[in-house]
Amino acid sequence: MEFKIEKKKLLTNVELASNAVARKTTNPILSGILLEIKENELNIYATDLQTGFHKKEDIAYTEEEFSFVVDQKVFSDIVRTLPDGPVRIIYDGTLQLESGNSSFKIPTMDAGEFPNVIPAVSGNSINLNREETLKMIEKVIFCALKDNDPLSKNLNGLYWDFRDGGYLTLIASDSYRLALSETKIDDEDLPSSFLLSLKSMEELKMVLASSKAETFTLNFDGSRSLFTFEEENIQLILNVVDAKYPNYTEIIPQAFKTKIVSNSKEFLDSLKRVSIAAGKSEQVKLEIEETNITLKANSPDVGEAKEIIDIEKDGEDIVIAYSPKFLREAIEKVETTEFEFNISGEINPTVIKPIEDNSYMYIVMPTRWA
Amino acid sequence: MEFKIEKKKLLTNVELASNAVARKTTNPILSGILLEIKENELNIYATDLQTGFHKKEDIAYTEEEFSFVVDQKVFSDIVRTLPDGPVRIIYDGTLQLESGNSSFKIPTMDAGEFPNVIPAVSGNSINLNREETLKMIEKVIFCALKDNDPLSKNLNGLYWDFRDGGYLTLIASDSYRLALSETKIDDEDLPSSFLLSLKSMEELKMVLASSKAETFTLNFDGSRSLFTFEEENIQLILNVVDAKYPNYTEIIPQAFKTKIVSNSKEFLDSLKRVSIAAGKSEQVKLEIEETNITLKANSPDVGEAKEIIDIEKDGEDIVIAYSPKFLREAIEKVETTEFEFNISGEINPTVIKPIEDNSYMYIVMPTRWA
Repeated sequence: MEFKIEKKKLLTNVELASNAVARKTTNPILSGILLEIKENELNIYATDLQTGFHKKEDIAYTEEEFSFVVDQKVFSDIVRTLPDGPVRIIYDGTLQLESGNSSFKIPTMDAGEFPNVIPAVSGNSINLNREETLKMIEKVIFCALKDNDPLSKNLNGLYWDFRDGGYLTLIASDSYRLALSETKIDDEDLPSSFLLSLKSMEELKMVLASSKAETFTLNFDGSRSLFTFEEENIQLILNVVDAKYPNYTEIIPQAFKTKIVSNSKEFLDSLKRVSIAAGKSEQVKLEIEETNITLKANSPDVGEAKEIIDIEKDGEDIVIAYSPKFLREAIEKVETTEFEFNISGEINPTVIKPIEDNSYMYIVMPTRWA
Repeated sequence: MEFKIEKKKLLTNVELASNAVARKTTNPILSGILLEIKENELNIYATDLQTGFHKKEDIAYTEEEFSFVVDQKVFSDIVRTLPDGPVRIIYDGTLQLESGNSSFKIPTMDAGEFPNVIPAVSGNSINLNREETLKMIEKVIFCALKDNDPLSKNLNGLYWDFRDGGYLTLIASDSYRLALSETKIDDEDLPSSFLLSLKSMEELKMVLASSKAETFTLNFDGSRSLFTFEEENIQLILNVVDAKYPNYTEIIPQAFKTKIVSNSKEFLDSLKRVSIAAGKSEQVKLEIEETNITLKANSPDVGEAKEIIDIEKDGEDIVIAYSPKFLREAIEKVETTEFEFNISGEINPTVIKPIEDNSYMYIVMPTRWA
């Protein structure tokens, strides 16, 4: 039993599946991908039981149906090195890959052992804009908690909050800071809000980035979200994380002591320079006066740094400190020439947002100046 | 006391000095660079007591002479982030750096504590071609032993072998393989041969790569080699490693059982693919027959790989195994379309060299096929 497929096409598909494969697992079958070959179809499946990937590829094959599971890493490492052109894939209990003068024999696992990757999802269905959704994810994902301790699994992901009036807000937070990205949705029948794991989101991000479609479909049945990319014949099942997301609207401050408008690039460049002197202190101090901010940092080994930037200010003069990394990562996401910095006190959250753009907001806790 | 210098110029000089700075040291002054400012001159010095770097830069400064030592890493990290344009360097016991609205205060060390970097060298002096020397170093340096165990310090470097008749040969070996690069020198008065440490050679490589001069001067007085780049006002002192280099000419085989000529790119591509299946076995087997080689590798987790390449062969059929990495790194250095593979037996060294080019030779020990 054998079929042929272009190397490039095969590699793209295997790499798209890669984030759905289990990374560390005691069950080896979950580190594999299932290839199922049937009438004029190659189906590629991968799952870590949280995320499920299915892609259908048209091929010229009309003989007996067959399927096998192969380790994803080994398989993509080999396919990647093959010269461009057709690859012959032969299976007779063991798997053989042939291309030009090269041939590989690769161990396989039993397809019968592979879990069901794409269960049926029947629930609310809405259409989302692909590029916009990708941008929204990129604007918040860096704030999600990387640590996947079961106790903090509610922060190790992105919250998809659907609100009445037709809004979708994506939220990520590591409890020290929070990023929020919002869009208007025309569908009237919105699904209930859900939380997806960071690893699932990385797989979704990759598929969104590689797709060429304008829109895609999201189905939600209360415990599973199904993302369908018609044009690419891709389905992605992302299981919802069973945990309560914090009530983020409560921590958004409503009143401000001091409001600043600054040039985004100028602020970012100054911040980067001053940060060097912060060294292990991981603190940068902002002295906000009538028409300028002085950024300061110091550490015993590196020394001291100081920068002055012109700003527009409303409200009180204030001296306040932040983690330079937390400021930098937020301001890097601002796409407007100028941004707003809204301070509600030395121990209350600060809001950073682009000028005249309510689709993005970043909330960060000040640090105590040591 | 202060002077001005363009950011780009300052950064280039500090980075050129960086490989001469001590990496791990109990003496903090050796992790610094000495800046000495005198009449219309900035002098930058660095040394780890094995390698010494000195660069003179013209500046507009005619006041009192002054000098200080600053940590190289801290200093270059700061200079790198500054905007392009003039940097003001102010010293009054502490060091201040100013550029635009940025200012830095950096701790310094006492210039009086800094060792003498460039002692006088009076010995044989020859001119070498810069680009050619750089190429020669690049062709052999990957073979030097990385490990800097004092017991193997004779292999943790490059041997500069000057031979009668006007030849310079650079040699590096880690005892499993050896690379050799040779050139003809017109000078009659050649220095005696010497051994330089890998770290010294990395500094020399960096200066050679950044220089624009056609030639540079090498002086040698028996224990120190002085490399002078007139055009860039750079001097580099490389102390000779006090250890005996193995007699490498003895291991170059004189008679061959089997000689192969193969296309370099084709062999390299096939080798890379087959190597994947080698996995942890780190072995690739070559089955050499009349008109072709079969490359084979296998490992329990990855499986098996096989490639067939057409070759020209003289001598006996043979089956022989090598470390895939050792073969790859050698053939990557071959610049000709075809290369020679000279086998003197399963347990004797193999010689790899470009076709009709005696300036480069690579010797590798076969492994036993497991």
